[in-house]
Parts: sequence; structure tokens; C-alpha cells
Amino acid sequence: MFDPACPSSAMPIRIGDKWSAMVIVCLEHGPRRFSELRVPMRGVTPKVLTQTLRALERDGMVTRTVYPEIPPRVEYELTDLGRTMFGPIAACRAWADAHLEDLLRARAAYDQATPSAGGA
Amino acid sequence: MFDPACPSSAMPIRIGDKWSAMVIVCLEHGPRRFSELRVPMRGVTPKVLTQTLRALERDGMVTRTVYPEIPPRVEYELTDLGRTMFGPIAACRAWADAHLEDLLRARAAYDQATPSAGGA
Repeated sequence: MFDPACPSSAMPIRIGDKWSAMVIVCLEHGPRRFSELRVPMRGVTPKVLTQTLRALERDGMVTRTVYPEIPPRVEYELTDLGRTMFGPIAACRAWADAHLEDLLRARAAYDQATPSAGGA
Repeated sequence: MFDPACPSSAMPIRIGDKWSAMVIVCLEHGPRRFSELRVPMRGVTPKVLTQTLRALERDGMVTRTVYPEIPPRVEYELTDLGRTMFGPIAACRAWADAHLEDLLRARAAYDQATPSAGGA
């Protein structure tokens, strides 16, 4: 893990990106169109969602299928590899449910004690 | 999870940062000095390690203790909250052990098929 040449030091890339985790969760029950992903992912801009989907496609997590209709229909779907992310995502969500409030409380206290460090 | 006002959409911040995860793992068996962290974390610059430790301190994961000696001794130690990160970190490491090669293979294939997208 601590050898920079070891590929696992590149991990956990996708998990660390909240948008990627959200896309994976949104695709759990089947393929979705771009517009269908935007609805549950309130707050995501089209640009960020496009970048997130492309990164997930590049990493083999998501497929992008264009159906030759008029207008063309484009659907995103999890691959088998994408489905393997449910485990670590669930662990992170369980952690957040149990401990995120403690983290936010610590952060607020730290920022109050050292105002110049806020947002660092 | 999908409400931007919900604090859990801020997660999993620390987990997603590989340096933070490495620091937490390095502190598993007790307090360490800055120089002692640099040894196992080959490749980390002093600047990045300083930023990582400050972020972990801000999030209540790590304490920084200055001992009034000459020269001053500074030690970093996991808090109880920091120890709660072992679970999600282990899940991410298990994921990487099982699937990271598949991800890297997919990425290389994608970059070969669409060279302009490489490194995106």
C-alpha cells in the first residue's frame, strides 16, 4: 500500500468522489438516462455529471449505450465491476451515519479556535 | 444522501484522500512523529503531509501534541473518531485487492480507444 509504484496507492479514487458514489447508487436498479440521473442528484451541474460519467466509463464501472432512435437515446448502466463498489460505498455510508456528526462538530470547533485555518 | 444540505453528501471526504488513509493506517499502533510518518509514506512531500495532518486534526481524527523539550517533540496520535475509519479503509483496501487490476485494465483500454481522453 505504501509503495507509490503499487497500483493500490491510486485507490480509493472513485469512492472518494461523492458524485461517483451517487451515480453508482442511482444505477443500482437498472440503466438510467442522463436526465434521470440529474433528478435524484440534486445540485449536480450537467458538466460535473458528464465528467463523472466519463470517469466511471473510463474506469470500467459504467457502460454508455447509444440507441439509434430519433432523438438518440443514451443510457448508462453499471458493469459487474461497478457493482463491486456497493461494498465499500455501504461501508462509507455506514461510517457517515454513525460518525459524520462527530467529524462536523470537530471541524466547527477547530475553525472557531483557529479562524484563519477555516476552509483549509 | 442526495440532499446537498445533508451533511453526509460531504462524505467520504477523508477516505477518498489516499494520504489521509495512509496516515491513519500508519498511526494504528500508537503515536508517531512527523519524521516517522514520512518513512513508510514514501513519496509524500513535507508540504502534503503537513496539509494532510492538519486536515485530519481539523476533522477530529488526529491529535497533535507538542512536548516542551529542546528541541520540541511533536507527536500525532489517532483519536477514537480516527479509529472508526479502520472499517471503511479496510473495505476500500479489500476492494482494491480484489478489483483494482480490473479498473486499471479498463482505464488503459479506454485510453487506447480514445487517446485524447487519456488522463482526464
